[in-house]
Amino acid sequence: MTDSAGPTVSGAADENPSGTVLDGFHVVIPAGGAGTRLWPLSRSSVPKFLHDLTGARRTLLQSTWDRLVPLAGPAGINVVTGRAHGRAVQRQLPDLDDSALFLEPSPKDSAPAIALATAVIARRDPRAVIGSFAADHVVGDLPVFDAAVREAVATARAGYLVTIGIKPTHAATGYGYIRCGEGLGIADAADARAVTSFVEKPAADVAAEYLRSGDYRWNAGMFVFRADVLLDHLAAAQPELYAGISQIADAWDTPKRDDVLDDVWPGLPKIAIDYAAAEPLAAAGGVAVVPGDFWWDDVGDFAAIDRLNHRSTALERAGVVTPTNDLTVLGNSTIVSRDSNGIVVADSKRVIAVVGIDDVVVVDTPDALLVTTRAHAQDVKKIVEELRAEGHDEVL
Amino acid sequence: MTDSAGPTVSGAADENPSGTVLDGFHVVIPAGGAGTRLWPLSRSSVPKFLHDLTGARRTLLQSTWDRLVPLAGPAGINVVTGRAHGRAVQRQLPDLDDSALFLEPSPKDSAPAIALATAVIARRDPRAVIGSFAADHVVGDLPVFDAAVREAVATARAGYLVTIGIKPTHAATGYGYIRCGEGLGIADAADARAVTSFVEKPAADVAAEYLRSGDYRWNAGMFVFRADVLLDHLAAAQPELYAGISQIADAWDTPKRDDVLDDVWPGLPKIAIDYAAAEPLAAAGGVAVVPGDFWWDDVGDFAAIDRLNHRSTALERAGVVTPTNDLTVLGNSTIVSRDSNGIVVADSKRVIAVVGIDDVVVVDTPDALLVTTRAHAQDVKKIVEELRAEGHDEVL
Repeated sequence: MTDSAGPTVSGAADENPSGTVLDGFHVVIPAGGAGTRLWPLSRSSVPKFLHDLTGARRTLLQSTWDRLVPLAGPAGINVVTGRAHGRAVQRQLPDLDDSALFLEPSPKDSAPAIALATAVIARRDPRAVIGSFAADHVVGDLPVFDAAVREAVATARAGYLVTIGIKPTHAATGYGYIRCGEGLGIADAADARAVTSFVEKPAADVAAEYLRSGDYRWNAGMFVFRADVLLDHLAAAQPELYAGISQIADAWDTPKRDDVLDDVWPGLPKIAIDYAAAEPLAAAGGVAVVPGDFWWDDVGDFAAIDRLNHRSTALERAGVVTPTNDLTVLGNSTIVSRDSNGIVVADSKRVIAVVGIDDVVVVDTPDALLVTTRAHAQDVKKIVEELRAEGHDEVL
Repeated sequence: MTDSAGPTVSGAADENPSGTVLDGFHVVIPAGGAGTRLWPLSRSSVPKFLHDLTGARRTLLQSTWDRLVPLAGPAGINVVTGRAHGRAVQRQLPDLDDSALFLEPSPKDSAPAIALATAVIARRDPRAVIGSFAADHVVGDLPVFDAAVREAVATARAGYLVTIGIKPTHAATGYGYIRCGEGLGIADAADARAVTSFVEKPAADVAAEYLRSGDYRWNAGMFVFRADVLLDHLAAAQPELYAGISQIADAWDTPKRDDVLDDVWPGLPKIAIDYAAAEPLAAAGGVAVVPGDFWWDDVGDFAAIDRLNHRSTALERAGVVTPTNDLTVLGNSTIVSRDSNGIVVADSKRVIAVVGIDDVVVVDTPDALLVTTRAHAQDVKKIVEELRAEGHDEVL
């Protein structure tokens, strides 16, 4: 949002100056995913979003809440999670309203989760604008994030499905990319551009070309849209999903909720919001991107945790820290080290000694221990697959 | 011992043909030392000699017992250990006679330990020949070991303090060396040579020269001697030690044992048998060396454990194993690994995953975890020193 923005058409700027809660804006936080590459810290019983991975004394879910409360207010934040995690979410978010907690009977990927919350919220507030933000990402530069969301809300009010596009810092091959088109000239959203297409995780040379061109942004799965826009799209493009979600939403605020949910949910298609809505809408010219020039990390593996913690330490110490000459320690165990750097995640009474390993990753939990290096952080997923194949579900 | 050995002077060969127990031969096993470089597996409460470090299902102490029983018989084996370890030793060696267990009130290094057992045994059997063997070394090629001890006993009967000199396999800088002199021409000990001197741990270039010359052997602390020879030497060279030990030994098999022990032991000098006897006797021409061309390892650090276990696996599988493409696992934990080699020591219900680390050493115990590499195996001692300095005695 720029200071030079002229008089608005919608009046949104008057209603929602920066720093105040956005009227009619509802946040949906899909809190799912096991965070397999963060095993054995993250696991099905206590997934990634329930952990403090930054040493901030707030879990990823709580930090997500913290950065969205200024935009939607505590009453405007909704969480969709698995039934098994309902109580943990309530404990971590004591100000979350009971009516804003959506418990899925089984995981169905992001489209059913977001569509359900959207359909219920639309019945409570037909003019709702919804912002969907993952529960397990980390965002820095909060004023920049805040401004981007406000611009995305203004763009969504104009009828677009809006994605917040993260400025790439390197030629990542692990993220999807957003191809940006022409500016849209929307009031209070000077930076909003059309989205030409979404691109799946590219090869390294393609990613490098994307980075050079300046026309691509990372897709962090942050979507902002008017409830009616998403629901109208789903009615046309995903009629089965739309019908099921509508049936559940009609029953949601009635005594029949659980019966209908248990009856209908299992039959819903399992599909990501990207495939169900973002990609087809982009092809039809209905998607906008607002640049998100804030610091963002999806904390995909232990290398990311190391990065994050060095970053926060570096911020605290104003650059004094030398990330390659140091062990990052997450947790309260007693750590003794020599000639080592990397990360130790451990919260036990045990003494942990690390000697002479560069880029080490040690994750010590009561029933499972991981020893690897940052370079192999992505391979942790394969270990989890192997453990599953061997029947060690008790530690997964 | 050679088949061509001529008629003997002492008649020892007739008394003790290979394969029978040697008459008047008493083994003393000093079982001490914390094995600091094997922390956190070895520690003051459960030191190295009480552990199975070879996967043999026998601890180092038990294996020491096993290889000496054919030479001295169960009744001929004595153990000297700290009071804290008396019960553990008895549990591990059920055939150890109560009268053969010597409990030290406090650690005093090897000379007081060996001298005490020697003095007590001499009172029980004045013609005793004593063999002292560490409780925490590993020996292979047992027939060769057996023959070397028999030859050492024959040499000891002739009045020498005999050391069994290990054939060096590389220019080790971590061991003391024995400089070998002329052959002694002793019956039943064709290979026995005079010892010119003992040499402290040498520098690398000196060790290389020793290896080249062929005149040097490793000092593994295996000493064989007539009880009267050692006691006479101590009476002259270490009168304070001799007097104290004699006082205790006189009281040992009487009701006054504990009183005298507690009274006298604390005042004894703390000194190694090498300094108290072997070195001064060598200077006076009283020491002989018998070659020990068997496989020997003092299991000084985790690199040694890895070596040992690969060795035994390799023996079992007749060379099929590839030591650098494999994790050695000691203990019963569930281990999952990818792209790793090295050693994991763990005996718990935990699942341990190791990914992408060469030469890794992971030692997982209930209250302490060590992660290092074989190349840093020696540095574990420094970690223990650091933990002691920081007051973490509960895990040491």
